[in-house]
Amino acid sequence: MRQTIQPRSGTAFTINKGERLKVIDPEGEQVADLYAFNAHDKNEFMSSGRSLDYNESTHFKSGCKLYSNESQVMFEIIEDTVEEHDFLLTPCSVDTFKHFYPSDPPVPGCHGNLVAAFAEFDIPAHHIGTTFNTFMNVDVSPEGKIAVLPPTSKAGDYTIFEAKMDMIVGLTACSAGESNNFRYKPIQFEILPAL
Amino acid sequence: MRQTIQPRSGTAFTINKGERLKVIDPEGEQVADLYAFNAHDKNEFMSSGRSLDYNESTHFKSGCKLYSNESQVMFEIIEDTVEEHDFLLTPCSVDTFKHFYPSDPPVPGCHGNLVAAFAEFDIPAHHIGTTFNTFMNVDVSPEGKIAVLPPTSKAGDYTIFEAKMDMIVGLTACSAGESNNFRYKPIQFEILPAL
Repeated sequence: MRQTIQPRSGTAFTINKGERLKVIDPEGEQVADLYAFNAHDKNEFMSSGRSLDYNESTHFKSGCKLYSNESQVMFEIIEDTVEEHDFLLTPCSVDTFKHFYPSDPPVPGCHGNLVAAFAEFDIPAHHIGTTFNTFMNVDVSPEGKIAVLPPTSKAGDYTIFEAKMDMIVGLTACSAGESNNFRYKPIQFEILPAL
Repeated sequence: MRQTIQPRSGTAFTINKGERLKVIDPEGEQVADLYAFNAHDKNEFMSSGRSLDYNESTHFKSGCKLYSNESQVMFEIIEDTVEEHDFLLTPCSVDTFKHFYPSDPPVPGCHGNLVAAFAEFDIPAHHIGTTFNTFMNVDVSPEGKIAVLPPTSKAGDYTIFEAKMDMIVGLTACSAGESNNFRYKPIQFEILPAL
Protein backbone atom coordinates (compact mmCIF):
# COMPACT_ATOMS: atom_id res chain seq x y z
CA MET A 1 0.00 0.00 0.00
CA ARG A 2 1.37 3.34 -1.01
CA GLN A 3 1.74 5.86 1.80
CA THR A 4 2.24 9.58 1.53
CA ILE A 5 4.56 11.77 3.61
CA GLN A 6 3.18 15.29 3.56
CA PRO A 7 5.48 18.17 2.53
CA ARG A 8 8.05 19.14 5.19
CA SER A 9 7.24 16.18 7.44
CA GLY A 10 8.57 12.74 8.28
CA THR A 11 7.67 9.32 9.58
CA ALA A 12 9.24 6.18 11.02
CA PHE A 13 8.29 2.53 10.57
CA THR A 14 9.74 -0.96 10.77
CA ILE A 15 10.90 -3.12 7.90
CA ASN A 16 11.89 -6.77 7.98
CA LYS A 17 14.94 -8.34 6.40
CA GLY A 18 14.19 -9.16 2.77
CA GLU A 19 11.39 -6.63 2.37
CA ARG A 20 11.93 -3.76 -0.02
CA LEU A 21 11.37 -0.07 0.54
CA LYS A 22 10.27 1.82 -2.56
CA VAL A 23 10.73 5.57 -2.18
CA ILE A 24 8.81 7.53 -4.81
CA ASP A 25 9.00 11.17 -5.84
CA PRO A 26 5.41 11.67 -7.03
CA GLU A 27 5.80 15.20 -8.42
CA GLY A 28 9.55 15.34 -9.15
CA GLU A 29 12.39 17.47 -7.74
CA GLN A 30 11.73 16.40 -4.12
CA VAL A 31 14.30 15.03 -1.69
CA ALA A 32 13.61 12.30 0.92
CA ASP A 33 16.02 11.84 3.82
CA LEU A 34 16.42 8.19 4.83
CA TYR A 35 17.94 6.86 8.06
CA ALA A 36 17.79 3.49 9.80
CA PHE A 37 18.59 1.58 12.98
CA ASN A 38 19.05 -2.12 13.54
CA ALA A 39 15.69 -3.07 15.06
CA HIS A 40 17.43 -5.33 17.58
CA ASP A 41 20.28 -2.98 18.55
CA LYS A 42 19.69 0.75 18.44
CA ASN A 43 23.42 1.40 18.83
CA GLU A 44 23.82 0.15 15.27
CA PHE A 45 22.73 2.71 12.68
CA MET A 46 23.35 3.97 9.17
CA SER A 47 26.87 5.27 8.55
CA SER A 48 27.72 7.61 5.72
CA GLY A 49 31.44 7.25 6.41
CA ARG A 50 31.43 3.44 6.31
CA SER A 51 29.23 3.44 3.18
CA LEU A 52 31.42 5.90 1.28
CA ASP A 53 34.46 3.85 2.27
CA TYR A 54 33.14 0.41 1.28
CA ASN A 55 31.47 1.59 -1.93
CA GLU A 56 34.62 3.61 -2.73
CA SER A 57 32.29 6.19 -4.20
CA THR A 58 30.21 9.23 -3.32
CA HIS A 59 27.82 8.26 -6.13
CA PHE A 60 25.12 5.77 -5.16
CA LYS A 61 23.02 3.81 -7.64
CA SER A 62 21.64 0.33 -8.22
CA GLY A 63 24.00 -2.27 -6.74
CA CYS A 64 25.35 0.03 -4.04
CA LYS A 65 25.01 -0.91 -0.39
CA LEU A 66 24.31 1.26 2.63
CA TYR A 67 26.33 0.14 5.65
CA SER A 68 25.95 0.54 9.40
CA ASN A 69 28.56 1.83 11.85
CA GLU A 70 29.13 -1.88 12.58
CA SER A 71 30.11 -2.53 8.93
CA GLN A 72 26.95 -4.56 8.26
CA VAL A 73 24.89 -4.03 5.12
CA MET A 74 21.57 -2.37 6.01
CA PHE A 75 20.15 -1.73 2.53
CA GLU A 76 21.07 -2.59 -1.03
CA ILE A 77 19.79 -0.37 -3.81
CA ILE A 78 18.21 -2.80 -6.24
CA GLU A 79 16.38 -0.47 -8.62
CA ASP A 80 16.89 3.23 -9.18
CA THR A 81 15.47 5.48 -11.87
CA VAL A 82 17.35 8.54 -10.58
CA GLU A 83 20.95 7.62 -9.59
CA GLU A 84 21.51 11.03 -8.06
CA HIS A 85 21.57 11.00 -4.27
CA ASP A 86 23.62 12.59 -1.52
CA PHE A 87 25.30 10.87 1.42
CA LEU A 88 27.52 13.75 2.60
CA LEU A 89 25.21 16.17 4.40
CA THR A 90 23.34 15.91 7.69
CA PRO A 91 19.60 16.62 7.73
CA CYS A 92 18.70 20.25 8.37
CA SER A 93 17.73 21.26 11.90
CA VAL A 94 16.42 24.48 13.43
CA ASP A 95 20.06 25.60 13.67
CA THR A 96 20.74 24.76 10.03
CA PHE A 97 17.78 26.88 8.95
CA LYS A 98 19.03 29.77 11.09
CA HIS A 99 22.43 29.42 9.39
CA PHE A 100 21.31 29.16 5.77
CA TYR A 101 17.95 30.96 5.80
CA PRO A 102 18.35 33.56 8.59
CA SER A 103 15.45 35.69 7.39
CA ASP A 104 12.95 32.80 7.31
CA PRO A 105 11.12 31.49 10.36
CA PRO A 106 13.05 28.35 11.40
CA VAL A 107 11.34 24.99 10.94
CA PRO A 108 12.22 21.59 12.47
CA GLY A 109 13.71 20.42 9.17
CA CYS A 110 14.36 16.77 8.41
CA HIS A 111 16.43 16.45 11.57
CA GLY A 112 13.59 17.67 13.78
CA ASN A 113 11.07 15.55 11.88
CA LEU A 114 13.25 12.45 12.25
CA VAL A 115 13.81 13.14 15.96
CA ALA A 116 10.03 13.29 16.47
CA ALA A 117 9.36 10.20 14.34
CA PHE A 118 12.11 8.09 15.92
CA ALA A 119 11.09 9.17 19.43
CA GLU A 120 8.17 6.72 19.13
CA PHE A 121 10.84 4.01 19.04
CA ASP A 122 12.77 5.50 21.99
CA ILE A 123 15.68 6.55 19.82
CA PRO A 124 17.52 9.61 21.14
CA ALA A 125 18.12 12.64 18.89
CA HIS A 126 21.91 12.42 18.96
CA HIS A 127 21.89 8.97 17.34
CA ILE A 128 20.59 10.49 14.10
CA GLY A 129 23.60 11.14 11.88
CA THR A 130 24.15 11.82 8.20
CA THR A 131 21.10 10.57 6.30
CA PHE A 132 20.95 9.00 2.86
CA ASN A 133 19.46 11.98 1.06
CA THR A 134 17.47 10.22 -1.64
CA PHE A 135 17.11 12.28 -4.87
CA MET A 136 19.30 15.09 -3.44
CA ASN A 137 21.58 16.60 -6.06
CA VAL A 138 24.82 17.77 -4.48
CA ASP A 139 27.66 18.82 -6.72
CA VAL A 140 31.24 18.82 -5.45
CA SER A 141 33.64 20.80 -7.64
CA PRO A 142 37.23 19.66 -8.24
CA GLU A 143 38.23 22.20 -5.57
CA GLY A 144 35.78 20.64 -3.10
CA LYS A 145 33.15 23.36 -3.25
CA ILE A 146 29.71 21.96 -2.39
CA ALA A 147 26.66 23.19 -4.31
CA VAL A 148 23.08 22.03 -3.75
CA LEU A 149 21.29 21.81 -7.11
CA PRO A 150 17.66 21.02 -8.01
CA PRO A 151 16.98 17.27 -7.96
CA THR A 152 17.07 15.53 -11.32
CA SER A 153 14.12 13.31 -10.32
CA LYS A 154 10.96 13.55 -12.46
CA ALA A 155 7.37 12.78 -11.40
CA GLY A 156 7.08 9.07 -10.61
CA ASP A 157 10.80 8.41 -10.29
CA TYR A 158 11.77 6.01 -7.53
CA THR A 159 14.51 4.08 -5.76
CA ILE A 160 14.03 0.60 -4.27
CA PHE A 161 16.11 -0.40 -1.24
CA GLU A 162 16.21 -4.06 -0.17
CA ALA A 163 16.44 -4.49 3.60
CA LYS A 164 19.36 -6.67 4.66
CA MET A 165 18.38 -6.68 8.35
CA ASP A 166 15.31 -5.93 10.47
CA MET A 167 15.25 -2.17 10.89
CA ILE A 168 13.51 0.88 12.23
CA VAL A 169 13.47 3.32 9.34
CA GLY A 170 12.92 7.08 9.24
CA LEU A 171 11.91 8.86 6.04
CA THR A 172 11.06 12.49 5.32
CA ALA A 173 9.86 14.88 2.68
CA CYS A 174 12.72 17.36 2.85
CA SER A 175 12.00 20.86 4.17
CA ALA A 176 14.87 22.91 2.71
CA GLY A 177 14.15 25.31 -0.15
CA GLU A 178 17.38 24.97 -2.06
CA SER A 179 17.33 21.14 -1.98
CA ASN A 180 13.88 20.93 -3.61
CA ASN A 181 13.98 23.72 -6.19
CA PHE A 182 12.09 25.93 -3.71
CA ARG A 183 8.81 24.01 -3.74
CA TYR A 184 7.82 21.68 -0.89
CA LYS A 185 6.24 18.51 -2.20
CA PRO A 186 5.18 15.14 -0.73
CA ILE A 187 7.13 11.88 -0.83
CA GLN A 188 5.50 8.47 -1.18
CA PHE A 189 6.71 5.04 -0.15
CA GLU A 190 5.71 1.40 -0.24
CA ILE A 191 6.93 -1.64 1.65
CA LEU A 192 7.12 -4.47 -0.87
CA PRO A 193 7.23 -8.10 0.28
CA ALA A 194 10.44 -10.11 0.15
CA LEU A 195 11.21 -11.52 -3.29
CA MET B 1 55.26 19.88 25.67
CA ARG B 2 55.37 17.78 22.55
CA GLN B 3 53.88 14.30 22.91
CA THR B 4 54.28 11.35 20.57
CA ILE B 5 51.62 8.88 19.47
CA GLN B 6 53.36 5.68 18.49
CA PRO B 7 52.65 4.15 15.06
CA ARG B 8 49.23 2.46 14.78
CA SER B 9 48.05 3.72 18.18
CA GLY B 10 45.90 6.46 19.66
CA THR B 11 45.25 8.55 22.72
CA ALA B 12 42.60 10.78 24.30
CA PHE B 13 42.97 13.94 26.36
CA THR B 14 41.09 17.06 27.38
CA ILE B 15 41.47 20.53 25.93
CA ASN B 16 39.99 23.77 27.22
CA LYS B 17 38.23 26.42 25.21
CA GLY B 18 40.80 28.79 23.72
CA GLU B 19 43.69 26.34 23.84
CA ARG B 20 45.17 25.19 20.57
CA LEU B 21 45.93 21.68 19.43
CA LYS B 22 48.94 21.42 17.14
CA VAL B 23 49.02 18.12 15.24
CA ILE B 24 52.41 17.42 13.70
CA ASP B 25 53.50 14.88 11.11
CA PRO B 26 57.14 14.40 12.19
CA GLU B 27 58.26 12.18 9.30
CA GLY B 28 55.75 13.09 6.59
CA GLU B 29 53.04 11.08 4.79
CA GLN B 30 51.28 10.08 8.02
CA VAL B 31 47.57 10.48 8.76
CA ALA B 32 46.12 11.37 12.20
CA ASP B 33 42.43 10.76 12.89
CA LEU B 34 40.87 13.42 15.13
CA TYR B 35 37.55 13.22 16.97
CA ALA B 36 36.06 15.19 19.84
CA PHE B 37 33.25 15.37 22.36
CA ASN B 38 31.88 18.32 24.29
CA ALA B 39 33.50 17.77 27.71
CA HIS B 40 30.24 18.76 29.42
CA ASP B 41 27.83 16.79 27.21
CA LYS B 42 29.02 13.56 25.64
CA ASN B 43 25.96 13.47 23.39
CA GLU B 44 27.51 16.38 21.49
CA PHE B 45 30.32 15.30 19.18
CA MET B 46 32.11 16.08 15.95
CA SER B 47 29.92 15.91 12.86
CA SER B 48 31.30 15.49 9.37
CA GLY B 49 27.88 16.09 7.83
CA ARG B 50 27.28 19.38 9.66
CA SER B 51 30.84 20.53 8.95
CA LEU B 52 30.66 19.79 5.22
CA ASP B 53 27.30 21.57 5.09
CA TYR B 54 28.33 24.75 6.95
CA ASN B 55 31.73 25.05 5.28
CA GLU B 56 30.07 24.30 1.92
CA SER B 57 33.23 22.42 1.06
CA THR B 58 34.89 19.03 1.31
CA HIS B 59 38.25 20.84 1.39
CA PHE B 60 39.37 21.99 4.84
CA LYS B 61 42.15 24.51 5.44
CA SER B 62 42.98 27.52 7.60
CA GLY B 63 39.78 29.42 8.47
CA CYS B 64 37.53 26.35 8.26
CA LYS B 65 35.52 25.27 11.28
CA LEU B 66 34.69 21.81 12.54
CA TYR B 67 31.12 21.61 13.85
CA SER B 68 29.32 19.34 16.29
CA ASN B 69 26.05 17.49 15.69
CA GLU B 70 24.49 20.38 17.68
CA SER B 71 25.75 22.91 15.10
CA GLN B 72 28.28 24.41 17.50
CA VAL B 73 31.84 25.15 16.43
CA MET B 74 34.25 22.72 18.13
CA PHE B 75 37.51 23.66 16.39
CA GLU B 76 38.71 26.32 14.01
CA ILE B 77 41.74 25.58 11.87
CA ILE B 78 43.98 28.59 12.44
CA GLU B 79 47.22 27.46 10.81
CA ASP B 80 47.79 24.69 8.32
CA THR B 81 50.90 23.86 6.30
CA VAL B 82 49.19 20.96 4.50
CA GLU B 83 45.59 21.89 3.51
CA GLU B 84 44.87 18.33 2.45
CA HIS B 85 42.61 16.48 4.86
CA ASP B 86 39.66 14.12 4.65
CA PHE B 87 36.31 14.42 6.40
CA LEU B 88 34.37 11.78 4.44
CA LEU B 89 35.58 8.42 5.73
CA THR B 90 35.09 6.68 9.06
CA PRO B 91 38.15 5.40 10.92
CA CYS B 92 39.14 1.83 10.06
CA SER B 93 38.02 -0.95 12.38
CA VAL B 94 38.74 -4.68 12.53
CA ASP B 95 35.90 -5.12 10.01
CA THR B 96 37.34 -2.48 7.69
CA PHE B 97 40.69 -4.24 7.66
CA LYS B 98 38.97 -7.55 6.87
CA HIS B 99 37.20 -5.81 3.97
CA PHE B 100 40.16 -3.99 2.44
CA TYR B 101 43.12 -6.13 3.52
CA PRO B 102 41.64 -9.65 3.79
CA SER B 103 45.02 -11.37 3.63
CA ASP B 104 46.53 -9.31 6.49
CA PRO B 105 45.97 -10.05 10.17
CA PRO B 106 43.27 -7.57 11.26
CA VAL B 107 44.29 -4.78 13.65
CA PRO B 108 42.11 -2.50 15.81
CA GLY B 109 42.64 0.40 13.42
CA CYS B 110 41.94 3.99 14.35
CA HIS B 111 38.40 3.05 15.35
CA GLY B 112 39.58 0.43 17.80
CA ASN B 113 42.31 2.72 19.11
CA LEU B 114 39.81 5.56 19.61
CA VAL B 115 37.32 3.23 21.32
CA ALA B 116 40.05 2.18 23.78
CA ALA B 117 41.29 5.74 24.35
CA PHE B 118 37.81 7.24 24.79
CA ALA B 119 36.76 4.39 27.12
CA GLU B 120 38.81 6.10 29.83
CA PHE B 121 36.27 8.92 29.57
CA ASP B 122 33.27 6.54 29.60
CA ILE B 123 32.43 7.24 25.99
CA PRO B 124 30.73 4.30 24.24
CA ALA B 125 32.09 2.97 20.95
CA HIS B 126 29.02 3.78 18.89
CA HIS B 127 29.38 7.50 19.56
CA ILE B 128 32.57 7.61 17.49
CA GLY B 129 31.59 8.69 13.98
CA THR B 130 33.43 10.05 10.96
CA THR B 131 36.72 11.50 12.14
CA PHE B 132 38.59 14.52 10.80
CA ASN B 133 41.33 12.62 9.04
CA THR B 134 44.19 15.09 9.34
CA PHE B 135 46.70 14.90 6.46
CA MET B 136 44.66 12.18 4.70
CA ASN B 137 44.64 12.61 0.93
CA VAL B 138 41.35 11.40 -0.53
CA ASP B 139 40.60 12.13 -4.15
CA VAL B 140 37.03 12.14 -5.42
CA SER B 141 36.76 11.97 -9.22
CA PRO B 142 34.07 13.88 -11.13
CA GLU B 143 32.14 10.57 -11.26
CA GLY B 144 32.37 10.24 -7.47
CA LYS B 145 35.04 7.53 -7.39
CA ILE B 146 37.00 7.68 -4.13
CA ALA B 147 40.76 7.05 -4.18
CA VAL B 148 43.05 7.12 -1.16
CA LEU B 149 46.39 8.65 -2.17
CA PRO B 150 49.65 9.13 -0.24
CA PRO B 151 49.49 12.17 2.07
CA THR B 152 51.07 15.34 0.71
CA SER B 153 52.45 16.20 4.17
CA LYS B 154 56.22 16.52 4.53
CA ALA B 155 58.30 15.98 7.68
CA GLY B 156 57.43 18.69 10.21
CA ASP B 157 54.19 19.77 8.58
CA TYR B 158 51.38 20.59 10.98
CA THR B 159 47.85 21.84 11.48
CA ILE B 160 46.75 23.97 14.45
CA PHE B 161 43.16 23.69 15.67
CA GLU B 162 41.81 26.27 18.12
CA ALA B 163 39.34 24.80 20.61
CA LYS B 164 36.03 26.66 20.68
CA MET B 165 34.65 24.66 23.62
CA ASP B 166 35.97 22.43 26.41
CA MET B 167 36.45 19.02 24.84
CA ILE B 168 37.58 15.44 25.20
CA VAL B 169 39.73 14.80 22.15
CA GLY B 170 40.88 11.55 20.54
CA LEU B 171 43.86 11.46 18.20
CA THR B 172 45.59 8.59 16.42
CA ALA B 173 48.51 7.66 14.23
CA CYS B 174 46.57 5.96 11.43
CA SER B 175 46.99 2.21 10.96
CA ALA B 176 45.95 1.71 7.33
CA GLY B 177 48.60 0.96 4.72
CA GLU B 178 47.09 2.77 1.78
CA SER B 179 46.42 5.96 3.77
CA ASN B 180 50.07 6.35 4.85
CA ASN B 181 51.97 5.29 1.74
CA PHE B 182 52.42 1.83 3.33
CA ARG B 183 54.70 2.90 6.18
CA TYR B 184 53.42 3.29 9.73
CA LYS B 185 54.87 6.36 11.42
CA PRO B 186 54.25 8.30 14.63
CA ILE B 187 52.20 11.46 15.07
CA GLN B 188 53.10 14.24 17.50
CA PHE B 189 50.92 16.85 19.15
CA GLU B 190 51.14 19.82 21.48
CA ILE B 191 48.52 21.66 23.51
CA LEU B 192 49.34 25.36 23.18
CA PRO B 193 47.94 27.89 25.66
CA ALA B 194 45.11 30.24 24.71
CA LEU B 195 46.27 33.30 22.75
